Amino acid sequence: MTPFPLPPRSAIGILGGGQLGRMLALAAARLGFDAVVLGPEADSPAGRVAARQIVGAFDDPLALKQLSQAASVITFEFENVPASTLERLAAYGVAIAPGSRALAVSQDRVEEKTFLNAAGVATVAFQAVNSAEDAALAAARLGTPALLKTRREGYDGKGQVWIEHAAKAAAAFESLGGVACILEAAAPFERELSVIAARGRDGEIVLYPLGENHHENGVLRRTNAPARITPQIAEHAERIAHQVLNGLDYVGVMGIELFEVGGGVLLVNELAPRVHNTGHWTQDGCEVDQFEQHIRAIAGWPLGPTDAIRRVEMINLLGAEADDWLALASEPEGRLHLYGKYGAAPGRKMGHINRVHSV
Amino acid sequence: MTPFPLPPRSAIGILGGGQLGRMLALAAARLGFDAVVLGPEADSPAGRVAARQIVGAFDDPLALKQLSQAASVITFEFENVPASTLERLAAYGVAIAPGSRALAVSQDRVEEKTFLNAAGVATVAFQAVNSAEDAALAAARLGTPALLKTRREGYDGKGQVWIEHAAKAAAAFESLGGVACILEAAAPFERELSVIAARGRDGEIVLYPLGENHHENGVLRRTNAPARITPQIAEHAERIAHQVLNGLDYVGVMGIELFEVGGGVLLVNELAPRVHNTGHWTQDGCEVDQFEQHIRAIAGWPLGPTDAIRRVEMINLLGAEADDWLALASEPEGRLHLYGKYGAAPGRKMGHINRVHSV
Repeated sequence: MTPFPLPPRSAIGILGGGQLGRMLALAAARLGFDAVVLGPEADSPAGRVAARQIVGAFDDPLALKQLSQAASVITFEFENVPASTLERLAAYGVAIAPGSRALAVSQDRVEEKTFLNAAGVATVAFQAVNSAEDAALAAARLGTPALLKTRREGYDGKGQVWIEHAAKAAAAFESLGGVACILEAAAPFERELSVIAARGRDGEIVLYPLGENHHENGVLRRTNAPARITPQIAEHAERIAHQVLNGLDYVGVMGIELFEVGGGVLLVNELAPRVHNTGHWTQDGCEVDQFEQHIRAIAGWPLGPTDAIRRVEMINLLGAEADDWLALASEPEGRLHLYGKYGAAPGRKMGHINRVHSV
Repeated sequence: MTPFPLPPRSAIGILGGGQLGRMLALAAARLGFDAVVLGPEADSPAGRVAARQIVGAFDDPLALKQLSQAASVITFEFENVPASTLERLAAYGVAIAPGSRALAVSQDRVEEKTFLNAAGVATVAFQAVNSAEDAALAAARLGTPALLKTRREGYDGKGQVWIEHAAKAAAAFESLGGVACILEAAAPFERELSVIAARGRDGEIVLYPLGENHHENGVLRRTNAPARITPQIAEHAERIAHQVLNGLDYVGVMGIELFEVGGGVLLVNELAPRVHNTGHWTQDGCEVDQFEQHIRAIAGWPLGPTDAIRRVEMINLLGAEADDWLALASEPEGRLHLYGKYGAAPGRKMGHINRVHSV
């Protein structure tokens, strides 16, 4: 068994070499840890700041064995970790955080909403859809417009389609490839909010101030934080975070996407069992940011304070927008974070800028 | 010629694998740069967060050639870069920052004070000492107590000895190995202050608020910043920084150690042509910290704002003090920075903690 808390100079294993892995590795380094990154790409954004890179597929037994031997705890920059990977890691006896239950729940949208409702957390109405016929029946029951999503995979607006009329439900199902889906009732939301919460190995839970999020084409465009909210909303968000994180016996940082539907009511849209794009503002806005917080949690360290010290507008830099780095670096109130990615495909997340203002 | 400003994904070469190189590499990564670290030790603190490590002596021609080919600009975490190294790098045509003149001046305490005085910046009275006889004559002229230091090398109180009586000057000279020395008159200082300043490739100069420093056994113990100073002191420090950085056509961050001798008078004690231990407080106290600032300067980027957003007490964690990491990580106001070093020899700098308070 890994002895927690992990002392400095221990190695933190990270599955995934993208920007979240990179920022986790940088945070780990600040605390004196080594990062070991496993991913299919050599010299990935995370691999280029890690003490060690292991190049391999996420379900490559040899690569996973190397990672297990090198690291005292393993974490993930994405939730769609193959089940076979989790089984391998379990067999090697290495500690993982968050645990396999949190990953399994968040990998399947039906499982996730079922867990949430059972834990007393409200979501939009939904129904599992396994066939074109199911789709039509579900659309008739939930009403339209409704959102058809694949149960698994899909992010940033991929793998989902709006159904405007029940008559088009079957075709929509086929357009997603005929895989298992979920139909979600439309949420008449006023705002998209998110809460970044962390739970330590001792069960302590901390929340960051909520962020207000704006998406474009299914991709996060900006977060404004701390969001201006009522005490009722704050209290509701806190209750949700406790129900979710305790319910999953969670260890680490989680992003919880919320719909504010009026009257102080929050619905949970989605769980992300990892550091989250809507928490990037904490790097320049909070006492201890979400990346250090995640490392603290999984290493068994005490959690750090989450108070906001600045008001922040976080803007994602997508595709060629990052080419404006010189102008962005010239903004006195802008704190620029670039991911070192090669190739700025349209819409690809290349970096972000936190524009800071006094609280 | 290297085209400045360097675009993200360029490689920043760093000579030296210690904690300053490590924090420079982390700052470079945040801006999307790759760090390439050259040092004699594999898996050094800086090497473990760099995109690439080159293991070799600082004057190893092959290692320097590899570094020159890999990096768009080369910088240093220490000032005692061998002259042969600078000649090699010049021959390879790679840009270095700060330049060889700044390094040469700061490597020799007589050269440094001569430069300062010629630039109109006050220092303590001093005299070059090349023999035991010189030492006795200098002590008689400058009075005692006086401080005998080797002209070159030496840091953290090493390579220096106090002369209490002129009669003991010759013996003191021999005790330092008979190498070229400098005798410095005692500074009747009230406080030790330091200014961290940066100069960009366009000649822009910015200063951080001054820090007040406390040493023990010749090693920095703590910095309190922003130091409480009069407008006269602030103005004087600003003038000194401009005279020094412009005088050396400097590019990058420099630490300037100051003696406050009363009546608003500042003497320069020492120049450090690099990021500086007394500037670590900027990581958690200022808009843009000294490490990002140095990367911005040497990459030809616009300099960032240096305003203080918090009051900070920076405490160095020496030797076994870093073993208290769990208690330190539990302090709500403490921001912990550990260097990932193996082996905590007594007095070795293992990390630091920035205790933050409202301005």
